[in-house]
Amino acid sequence: MRASVFIATSLDGFIARENGALDWLPQGGGEEHGYTAFMATVDAIVMGRNTFETVLTFNAWPFGKKPVVVLSTRPFEGPPPRDAVLEFTEGHPRRVLEQLAQRGIQHVYVDGGITIQRFLEAGLIQRMTITRIPVLLGRGIPLFGPLSREVRLEHLGTRSYAGGMVTSEYEVIPKT
Amino acid sequence: MRASVFIATSLDGFIARENGALDWLPQGGGEEHGYTAFMATVDAIVMGRNTFETVLTFNAWPFGKKPVVVLSTRPFEGPPPRDAVLEFTEGHPRRVLEQLAQRGIQHVYVDGGITIQRFLEAGLIQRMTITRIPVLLGRGIPLFGPLSREVRLEHLGTRSYAGGMVTSEYEVIPKT
Repeated sequence: MRASVFIATSLDGFIARENGALDWLPQGGGEEHGYTAFMATVDAIVMGRNTFETVLTFNAWPFGKKPVVVLSTRPFEGPPPRDAVLEFTEGHPRRVLEQLAQRGIQHVYVDGGITIQRFLEAGLIQRMTITRIPVLLGRGIPLFGPLSREVRLEHLGTRSYAGGMVTSEYEVIPKT
Repeated sequence: MRASVFIATSLDGFIARENGALDWLPQGGGEEHGYTAFMATVDAIVMGRNTFETVLTFNAWPFGKKPVVVLSTRPFEGPPPRDAVLEFTEGHPRRVLEQLAQRGIQHVYVDGGITIQRFLEAGLIQRMTITRIPVLLGRGIPLFGPLSREVRLEHLGTRSYAGGMVTSEYEVIPKT
Protein backbone atom coordinates (compact mmCIF):
# COMPACT_ATOMS: atom_id res chain seq x y z
CA MET A 1 0.00 0.00 0.00
CA ARG A 2 1.34 3.39 -1.01
CA ALA A 3 -0.15 6.86 -0.74
CA SER A 4 0.69 9.75 -3.04
CA VAL A 5 -0.03 13.43 -3.38
CA PHE A 6 -0.38 15.02 -6.81
CA ILE A 7 -1.26 18.67 -6.57
CA ALA A 8 -0.75 22.15 -7.98
CA THR A 9 0.14 25.14 -5.84
CA SER A 10 0.82 28.80 -6.35
CA LEU A 11 4.43 29.89 -5.86
CA ASP A 12 3.42 31.02 -2.39
CA GLY A 13 2.05 27.60 -1.52
CA PHE A 14 -1.71 27.89 -1.91
CA ILE A 15 -3.83 25.15 -3.47
CA ALA A 16 -7.03 27.21 -3.66
CA ARG A 17 -8.35 30.64 -2.87
CA GLU A 18 -9.78 31.15 0.59
CA ASN A 19 -13.24 30.20 -0.75
CA GLY A 20 -11.87 27.06 -2.42
CA ALA A 21 -11.86 28.52 -5.93
CA LEU A 22 -9.41 27.13 -8.49
CA ASP A 23 -9.98 29.74 -11.19
CA TRP A 24 -6.31 30.81 -11.03
CA LEU A 25 -5.17 27.41 -12.33
CA PRO A 26 -4.42 27.05 -16.05
CA GLN A 27 -7.59 26.22 -17.95
CA GLY A 28 -8.30 22.52 -18.13
CA GLY A 29 -5.45 21.83 -15.73
CA GLY A 30 -2.84 23.22 -18.10
CA GLU A 31 -0.59 21.10 -20.22
CA GLU A 32 -0.56 17.40 -19.51
CA HIS A 33 2.05 17.10 -16.77
CA GLY A 34 1.71 13.49 -15.70
CA TYR A 35 -1.75 13.46 -14.17
CA THR A 36 -3.20 10.92 -16.60
CA ALA A 37 -0.31 8.51 -16.07
CA PHE A 38 -0.50 9.06 -12.31
CA MET A 39 -4.25 8.44 -12.16
CA ALA A 40 -3.82 5.22 -14.13
CA THR A 41 -1.85 3.85 -11.16
CA VAL A 42 -4.37 4.98 -8.53
CA ASP A 43 -6.82 2.50 -7.01
CA ALA A 44 -8.67 4.82 -4.65
CA ILE A 45 -8.82 8.48 -3.68
CA VAL A 46 -8.98 9.90 -0.15
CA MET A 47 -9.97 13.55 0.24
CA GLY A 48 -11.35 15.97 2.76
CA ARG A 49 -14.87 17.27 2.75
CA ASN A 50 -13.90 20.73 1.48
CA THR A 51 -12.10 19.29 -1.53
CA PHE A 52 -15.05 17.00 -2.19
CA GLU A 53 -17.42 19.96 -2.18
CA THR A 54 -15.15 21.74 -4.66
CA VAL A 55 -15.00 18.69 -6.94
CA LEU A 56 -18.81 18.55 -6.88
CA THR A 57 -18.86 21.94 -8.60
CA PHE A 58 -16.89 20.59 -11.58
CA ASN A 59 -18.78 19.91 -14.80
CA ALA A 60 -18.06 16.19 -14.56
CA TRP A 61 -17.05 13.80 -11.81
CA PRO A 62 -13.34 13.27 -12.54
CA PHE A 63 -12.72 9.96 -10.76
CA GLY A 64 -14.88 7.54 -12.76
CA LYS A 65 -15.76 4.44 -10.77
CA LYS A 66 -12.69 4.54 -8.54
CA PRO A 67 -13.63 4.46 -4.86
CA VAL A 68 -13.48 7.92 -3.30
CA VAL A 69 -13.28 8.09 0.49
CA VAL A 70 -14.36 11.45 1.88
CA LEU A 71 -13.14 12.30 5.36
CA SER A 72 -16.00 14.13 6.97
CA THR A 73 -17.89 14.46 10.21
CA ARG A 74 -20.99 15.78 8.42
CA PRO A 75 -23.50 13.64 6.52
CA PHE A 76 -23.72 14.07 2.75
CA GLU A 77 -27.28 14.95 1.76
CA GLY A 78 -27.07 15.62 -1.92
CA PRO A 79 -27.43 13.17 -4.77
CA PRO A 80 -24.06 11.60 -5.56
CA PRO A 81 -22.51 12.42 -8.92
CA ARG A 82 -23.32 9.88 -11.61
CA ASP A 83 -21.00 6.85 -11.51
CA ALA A 84 -19.33 8.09 -8.32
CA VAL A 85 -18.35 5.39 -5.82
CA LEU A 86 -18.41 7.31 -2.54
CA GLU A 87 -17.71 6.46 1.05
CA PHE A 88 -17.77 8.80 4.02
CA THR A 89 -15.75 8.21 7.13
CA GLU A 90 -14.54 10.02 10.24
CA GLY A 91 -11.67 7.58 10.61
CA HIS A 92 -8.08 8.34 11.50
CA PRO A 93 -5.78 8.45 8.42
CA ARG A 94 -3.94 5.27 9.41
CA ARG A 95 -7.18 3.36 9.97
CA VAL A 96 -8.58 4.59 6.64
CA LEU A 97 -5.55 3.29 4.75
CA GLU A 98 -5.56 0.00 6.66
CA GLN A 99 -9.16 -0.60 5.70
CA LEU A 100 -8.43 0.18 2.06
CA ALA A 101 -5.41 -2.15 2.12
CA GLN A 102 -7.59 -4.95 3.46
CA ARG A 103 -9.75 -4.55 0.36
CA GLY A 104 -6.74 -4.94 -1.92
CA ILE A 105 -6.21 -1.26 -2.67
CA GLN A 106 -2.54 -0.73 -3.43
CA HIS A 107 -2.17 2.93 -4.36
CA VAL A 108 -4.13 5.76 -2.76
CA TYR A 109 -4.27 9.33 -4.03
CA VAL A 110 -4.55 11.71 -1.07
CA ASP A 111 -6.02 15.10 -1.92
CA GLY A 112 -6.94 18.32 -0.17
CA GLY A 113 -4.94 20.64 2.07
CA ILE A 114 -6.03 19.57 5.54
CA THR A 115 -6.12 15.91 4.53
CA ILE A 116 -2.63 16.00 3.02
CA GLN A 117 -1.34 17.70 6.16
CA ARG A 118 -2.92 15.05 8.42
CA PHE A 119 -1.49 12.19 6.36
CA LEU A 120 1.96 13.80 6.21
CA GLU A 121 1.95 14.34 9.96
CA ALA A 122 1.02 10.67 10.42
CA GLY A 123 3.92 9.60 8.15
CA LEU A 124 1.54 8.02 5.65
CA ILE A 125 2.59 9.73 2.39
CA GLN A 126 5.29 8.11 0.28
CA ARG A 127 5.33 10.29 -2.81
CA MET A 128 4.54 13.92 -3.61
CA THR A 129 4.24 15.44 -7.06
CA ILE A 130 3.98 19.19 -6.74
CA THR A 131 3.30 21.49 -9.68
CA ARG A 132 4.13 25.15 -9.16
CA ILE A 133 1.96 27.64 -11.02
CA PRO A 134 3.76 30.95 -11.68
CA VAL A 135 1.52 33.19 -9.61
CA LEU A 136 1.56 34.63 -6.11
CA LEU A 137 -1.98 34.59 -4.72
CA GLY A 138 -1.08 36.32 -1.46
CA ARG A 139 -3.73 34.41 0.47
CA GLY A 140 -5.65 31.14 0.20
CA ILE A 141 -5.77 27.56 1.43
CA PRO A 142 -2.20 26.37 2.06
CA LEU A 143 -0.85 23.04 0.86
CA PHE A 144 1.36 22.58 3.90
CA GLY A 145 0.84 23.23 7.58
CA PRO A 146 2.64 22.79 10.88
CA LEU A 147 4.44 19.49 11.44
CA SER A 148 5.67 18.07 14.72
CA ARG A 149 8.96 17.12 13.03
CA GLU A 150 10.95 17.76 9.87
CA VAL A 151 10.24 15.61 6.84
CA ARG A 152 13.08 15.02 4.39
CA LEU A 153 12.40 14.10 0.80
CA GLU A 154 14.37 12.76 -2.12
CA HIS A 155 14.01 14.71 -5.34
CA LEU A 156 13.22 12.28 -8.15
CA GLY A 157 12.84 14.68 -11.04
CA THR A 158 11.51 18.00 -12.27
CA ARG A 159 9.99 19.02 -15.57
CA SER A 160 8.84 22.41 -16.70
CA TYR A 161 6.19 23.19 -19.28
CA ALA A 162 5.67 25.94 -21.81
CA GLY A 163 2.85 27.48 -19.79
CA GLY A 164 5.23 28.06 -16.89
CA MET A 165 4.24 25.08 -14.76
CA VAL A 166 7.11 23.32 -12.97
CA THR A 167 6.39 19.78 -11.77
CA SER A 168 8.68 18.17 -9.18
CA GLU A 169 8.38 14.62 -7.92
CA TYR A 170 9.61 13.66 -4.45
CA GLU A 171 9.81 10.47 -2.40
CA VAL A 172 9.29 11.01 1.31
CA ILE A 173 12.23 9.64 3.30
CA PRO A 174 10.75 7.59 6.18
CA LYS A 175 11.64 8.81 9.65
CA THR A 176 14.25 6.64 11.25
CA MET B 1 17.48 49.90 -12.00
CA ARG B 2 16.36 46.36 -11.37
CA ALA B 3 15.78 44.46 -8.15
CA SER B 4 16.08 40.69 -7.79
CA VAL B 5 15.47 38.01 -5.22
CA PHE B 6 17.74 34.98 -5.02
CA ILE B 7 16.78 32.70 -2.18
CA ALA B 8 16.39 29.14 -0.98
CA THR B 9 13.25 27.85 0.70
CA SER B 10 12.02 24.60 2.16
CA LEU B 11 9.29 22.85 0.18
CA ASP B 12 6.81 24.36 2.60
CA GLY B 13 8.07 27.86 1.92
CA PHE B 14 10.33 28.72 4.84
CA ILE B 15 13.63 30.57 4.43
CA ALA B 16 14.81 30.02 8.00
CA ARG B 17 13.78 28.38 11.23
CA GLU B 18 11.75 30.48 13.62
CA ASN B 19 14.99 31.61 15.32
CA GLY B 20 16.58 32.50 11.97
CA ALA B 21 18.75 29.37 11.78
CA LEU B 22 19.84 28.10 8.37
CA ASP B 23 21.33 24.79 9.54
CA TRP B 24 18.81 22.86 7.40
CA LEU B 25 20.35 24.25 4.20
CA PRO B 26 22.90 22.10 2.34
CA GLN B 27 26.36 22.71 3.74
CA GLY B 28 28.17 25.60 2.07
CA GLY B 29 24.99 26.50 0.18
CA GLY B 30 24.92 23.21 -1.68
CA GLU B 31 26.03 22.80 -5.23
CA GLU B 32 26.72 25.95 -7.18
CA HIS B 33 23.31 26.86 -8.57
CA GLY B 34 23.92 30.25 -10.09
CA TYR B 35 24.64 32.35 -7.01
CA THR B 36 28.16 33.33 -8.08
CA ALA B 37 27.00 34.43 -11.52
CA PHE B 38 24.04 36.25 -9.96
CA MET B 39 26.20 38.09 -7.42
CA ALA B 40 28.56 39.20 -10.17
CA THR B 41 25.68 41.26 -11.61
CA VAL B 42 24.68 42.80 -8.26
CA ASP B 43 25.72 46.36 -7.39
CA ALA B 44 24.12 46.61 -3.96
CA ILE B 45 22.21 44.51 -1.44
CA VAL B 46 19.12 45.55 0.53
CA MET B 47 18.12 43.40 3.48
CA GLY B 48 16.11 43.53 6.66
CA ARG B 49 17.60 43.77 10.11
CA ASN B 50 16.86 40.13 10.98
CA THR B 51 18.67 38.83 7.90
CA PHE B 52 21.57 41.17 8.64
CA GLU B 53 21.86 39.79 12.16
CA THR B 54 21.90 36.26 10.74
CA VAL B 55 24.59 37.16 8.21
CA LEU B 56 26.69 38.60 11.05
CA THR B 57 26.88 35.10 12.54
CA PHE B 58 28.52 33.71 9.39
CA ASN B 59 32.25 33.02 9.51
CA ALA B 60 32.93 35.65 6.89
CA TRP B 61 31.09 38.68 5.53
CA PRO B 62 29.82 37.39 2.19
CA PHE B 63 29.24 40.65 0.32
CA GLY B 64 32.76 42.03 -0.01
CA LYS B 65 32.79 45.80 -0.54
CA LYS B 66 29.39 45.96 -2.17
CA PRO B 67 27.12 48.44 -0.44
CA VAL B 68 24.66 46.73 1.89
CA VAL B 69 21.60 48.71 2.93
CA VAL B 70 19.98 47.39 6.10
CA LEU B 71 16.36 48.37 6.67
CA SER B 72 16.06 48.91 10.38
CA THR B 73 14.53 51.18 12.96
CA ARG B 74 17.14 50.24 15.56
CA PRO B 75 20.71 51.59 15.69
CA PHE B 76 23.56 49.18 15.00
CA GLU B 77 25.97 49.15 17.93
CA GLY B 78 28.44 46.46 17.09
CA PRO B 79 31.64 46.77 15.12
CA PRO B 80 30.92 46.33 11.43
CA PRO B 81 32.38 43.25 9.74
CA ARG B 82 35.72 43.85 8.10
CA ASP B 83 35.42 45.35 4.62
CA ALA B 84 31.65 45.70 4.98
CA VAL B 85 30.12 48.81 3.44
CA LEU B 86 27.01 49.31 5.53
CA GLU B 87 24.16 51.77 5.55
CA PHE B 88 21.14 51.76 7.81
CA THR B 89 17.85 53.30 6.83
CA GLU B 90 14.21 53.34 7.84
CA GLY B 91 13.18 54.39 4.37
CA HIS B 92 10.28 53.11 2.32
CA PRO B 93 11.32 50.49 -0.28
CA ARG B 94 10.65 52.79 -3.23
CA ARG B 95 12.65 55.62 -1.70
CA VAL B 96 15.54 53.28 -0.88
CA LEU B 97 15.76 52.13 -4.49
CA GLU B 98 15.44 55.68 -5.82
CA GLN B 99 18.36 56.78 -3.69
CA LEU B 100 20.46 53.85 -4.87
CA ALA B 101 19.56 54.59 -8.50
CA GLN B 102 20.69 58.19 -8.04
CA ARG B 103 24.10 56.83 -7.07
CA GLY B 104 24.33 54.78 -10.26
CA ILE B 105 23.35 51.44 -8.76
CA GLN B 106 21.74 49.34 -11.49
CA HIS B 107 20.99 45.98 -9.92
CA VAL B 108 19.87 45.45 -6.33
CA TYR B 109 19.69 42.11 -4.52
CA VAL B 110 16.76 42.15 -2.10
CA ASP B 111 17.06 39.65 0.74
CA GLY B 112 15.13 38.58 3.82
CA GLY B 113 11.52 37.49 4.27
CA ILE B 114 9.85 40.66 5.49
CA THR B 115 11.92 42.81 3.15
CA ILE B 116 11.14 40.69 0.10
CA GLN B 117 7.44 40.80 1.02
CA ARG B 118 7.49 44.60 1.34
CA PHE B 119 9.28 45.04 -1.99
CA LEU B 120 6.95 42.59 -3.75
CA GLU B 121 3.90 44.37 -2.32
CA ALA B 122 5.31 47.66 -3.61
CA GLY B 123 5.82 46.17 -7.09
CA LEU B 124 9.57 46.71 -6.91
CA ILE B 125 10.89 43.21 -7.67
CA GLN B 126 11.59 42.27 -11.29
CA ARG B 127 13.17 38.85 -10.96
CA MET B 128 12.97 35.96 -8.49
CA THR B 129 15.25 32.94 -8.39
CA ILE B 130 13.87 30.42 -5.92
CA THR B 131 15.71 27.26 -4.93
CA ARG B 132 13.60 24.56 -3.30
CA ILE B 133 15.36 22.38 -0.73
CA PRO B 134 13.75 18.93 -0.39
CA VAL B 135 12.63 19.24 3.22
CA LEU B 136 9.44 20.18 5.03
CA LEU B 137 10.34 22.22 8.10
CA GLY B 138 6.77 22.49 9.39
CA ARG B 139 7.40 25.96 10.84
CA GLY B 140 9.77 28.86 10.34
CA ILE B 141 10.11 32.27 8.73
CA PRO B 142 8.09 32.30 5.50
CA LEU B 143 9.39 33.62 2.20
CA PHE B 144 6.02 34.95 1.12
CA GLY B 145 3.29 36.77 2.96
CA PRO B 146 -0.06 38.38 2.29
CA LEU B 147 -0.36 40.55 -0.81
CA SER B 148 -3.03 43.07 -1.63
CA ARG B 149 -3.22 41.69 -5.18
CA GLU B 150 -2.13 38.71 -7.24
CA VAL B 151 1.30 38.79 -8.83
CA ARG B 152 1.80 36.86 -12.05
CA LEU B 153 5.24 35.70 -13.10
CA GLU B 154 6.84 34.33 -16.22
CA HIS B 155 8.83 31.15 -15.76
CA LEU B 156 12.25 31.59 -17.37
CA GLY B 157 13.82 28.27 -16.54
CA THR B 158 14.37 25.55 -13.98
CA ARG B 159 17.37 23.41 -13.18
CA SER B 160 17.71 20.64 -10.66
CA TYR B 161 20.88 19.49 -8.93
CA ALA B 162 22.13 16.16 -7.68
CA GLY B 163 21.61 17.15 -4.05
CA GLY B 164 17.91 17.58 -4.69
CA MET B 165 17.83 21.35 -5.05
CA VAL B 166 15.50 22.72 -7.73
CA THR B 167 16.18 26.27 -8.87
CA SER B 168 13.51 28.17 -10.80
CA GLU B 169 13.91 31.64 -12.24
CA TYR B 170 10.93 33.93 -12.75
CA GLU B 171 10.35 37.41 -14.14
CA VAL B 172 7.63 39.33 -12.36
CA ILE B 173 4.96 40.51 -14.81
CA PRO B 174 4.27 44.17 -14.03
CA LYS B 175 0.72 44.97 -13.01
CA THR B 176 -1.23 46.63 -15.78
